[in-house]
Amino acid sequence: MSLPPFRTPIKHCRNCGEAVAYRVPDDGDTRVRAVCPACDTIHYENPLNVVGTVPHWGDQVLLCKRNIEPRWGKWTLPAGFMELGESAAEGAARETDEEAGAKFEMGELLSVLSVPRVGQVHMYWLAKLLSDRFEPGTETIEARLFTEDEIPWDEIAFKTVYETLKCYFADRRAGRFAVHVIDIT
Amino acid sequence: MSLPPFRTPIKHCRNCGEAVAYRVPDDGDTRVRAVCPACDTIHYENPLNVVGTVPHWGDQVLLCKRNIEPRWGKWTLPAGFMELGESAAEGAARETDEEAGAKFEMGELLSVLSVPRVGQVHMYWLAKLLSDRFEPGTETIEARLFTEDEIPWDEIAFKTVYETLKCYFADRRAGRFAVHVIDIT
Repeated sequence: MSLPPFRTPIKHCRNCGEAVAYRVPDDGDTRVRAVCPACDTIHYENPLNVVGTVPHWGDQVLLCKRNIEPRWGKWTLPAGFMELGESAAEGAARETDEEAGAKFEMGELLSVLSVPRVGQVHMYWLAKLLSDRFEPGTETIEARLFTEDEIPWDEIAFKTVYETLKCYFADRRAGRFAVHVIDIT
Repeated sequence: MSLPPFRTPIKHCRNCGEAVAYRVPDDGDTRVRAVCPACDTIHYENPLNVVGTVPHWGDQVLLCKRNIEPRWGKWTLPAGFMELGESAAEGAARETDEEAGAKFEMGELLSVLSVPRVGQVHMYWLAKLLSDRFEPGTETIEARLFTEDEIPWDEIAFKTVYETLKCYFADRRAGRFAVHVIDIT
């Protein structure tokens, strides 16, 4: 998650530059949108997807210590905003490569977490590590493996990561992995 | 899916209205973005989520005949763009209510389909119908129940809907439902 803050307010029309007005469009919509009084462009803002992996190696998982805000210095799973032109799983693999420099094989989807408060959906895939050597990118201070007991639970950067790690270890103990759909309130 | 076309090109800055330039930002990003030469605002565009349900009633599923473009007159599952402030499942339930006016109980997640060509991720939940009476909204010409044999497979509006229906009936025959993760190329 490297991008600068999203969701600065829309003040001007993306099409013509005119100052927008906030109102419910006349097309049957029920929500307030930024509407251009000059060219009628309606500006929609919708949730963003954050995609990542749970890279595992034996009984350990890979966490990255964040070298960026928000949550600098806290531990996270490799993840970031999904980009246009890629599938969700491709984005998760790309972020794992960028943030941890890990060699891995993508596995199954493990978690889908909605975070309405910030307008995001987070999705995590299992990823089987093929090596325990990592080459973290500039967004990562340190990338290292943790057993369940070693995980710094009080130093996890995001609740979605915390919940996903809990699901991972519970499923691992149960001997079968499922997709966990969770709403974070 | 009622909204007008997304993704009209960004020509002007959302913050100050200046004409944007398309270039890779100087912050370590690797992708071309619309950047404002006046106030440095970077404009990100990311995939959108479409959320919906497979409403089922005995051995039948509910399809809606579209009264809107694209694919006017074709059959679809109730679905639409996820909005800010709701979870993915809440959005799926809202769309089912809006498009079909159905009474239902939300079930498990059934499919997650990435469509990189249009920058979308579609997610469908199972929804158990509590009545076979529907009150379709203005976006729907007709809402009716189909058995697997009756489904108008050649008249399905979107490939994501087609694939989701195939998964639904295959799982139903198998006697257990799973989450299907599919990339539509």
